Amino acid sequence: MPHIDFQNDFPGIRGPLAYRRETSAPLNLLAEALLRSDNTLSRGERELIATYVSALNECFYCENAHGGMAQHYLECDLDFIDAVKKDFISSGISDKMKALLWIAGSVKKGGKYVDQNQVDTARSLGATDAEIHDTVLIAAAFCMFNRYVDGLATWAPEERNFYIERAKQLAEEGYANIDMSTK
Amino acid sequence: MPHIDFQNDFPGIRGPLAYRRETSAPLNLLAEALLRSDNTLSRGERELIATYVSALNECFYCENAHGGMAQHYLECDLDFIDAVKKDFISSGISDKMKALLWIAGSVKKGGKYVDQNQVDTARSLGATDAEIHDTVLIAAAFCMFNRYVDGLATWAPEERNFYIERAKQLAEEGYANIDMSTK
Repeated sequence: MPHIDFQNDFPGIRGPLAYRRETSAPLNLLAEALLRSDNTLSRGERELIATYVSALNECFYCENAHGGMAQHYLECDLDFIDAVKKDFISSGISDKMKALLWIAGSVKKGGKYVDQNQVDTARSLGATDAEIHDTVLIAAAFCMFNRYVDGLATWAPEERNFYIERAKQLAEEGYANIDMSTK
Repeated sequence: MPHIDFQNDFPGIRGPLAYRRETSAPLNLLAEALLRSDNTLSRGERELIATYVSALNECFYCENAHGGMAQHYLECDLDFIDAVKKDFISSGISDKMKALLWIAGSVKKGGKYVDQNQVDTARSLGATDAEIHDTVLIAAAFCMFNRYVDGLATWAPEERNFYIERAKQLAEEGYANIDMSTK
């Protein structure tokens, strides 16, 4: 049961987002800017960074919600997403993405864990400064979203198919336009 | 030296904020909503939560920037701020604020560290659901901001007086209206 009464029954982050509109507006805009707006990293790649960090933080709702989005955009199956979470080095993603997930994993531990060697590696594999910036910020942002979701003890549907179906809808609507009164 | 070239020399978070306007807009709006907009927690109390979490994350820039803001709004000296960071239980803040900082410290470790006992304690000391929500979200947001600042290896002025002077200016302007081309 959530620690406070959200006055709604929405799962995961949607509970506190609908409860507190003053803060949900900038949070939704941030998710839209990070995960959906024009970028040389694809939407699927950015959702994969979000999924990986959420898995490291053991945030079930975010891990599955963004895993669903990544699966949708990358047009892969869930086994592929699970393989990245389990061992991204051996997974089928590009070497550039492996270097970016390595950085994201360090951000999860704390900002100072990112070192110049990781950044140089990413750059040598084709990552631009903007992509490195966005990787750090996406990883940092999910250290916020994950804590928001679990720090208030929100509930999460257990069935993975829930997240797959929801992803199709969110991919249409985007994060900035969520109608929180009905969904 | 920062991990990437921000194309500016601004200290701390101002470097990447000015570098990437697409993401700085929602980040600044989030800071404004969390720390400055109308709230039953005073601006000084909210800046104190931000300062405490930044100190736990050992983010020198954020700890001093928001410590300066807290000192400005609370009209106290820096020794008071330092005492809260070192041992908030023995400090001169209210019992309600002690309970909220206890929650904030758990959020720093991870969302699941917040337990119902902490929430019940805060409530018994007068905290509202909205105040508990905002405490969790402020703490979570600084787990993002701190990682953003240190994950990109931004530089920070060492002199504490820099942050005191800057706080006076920021208290006038707010976070949403920062002119990033000149400051």
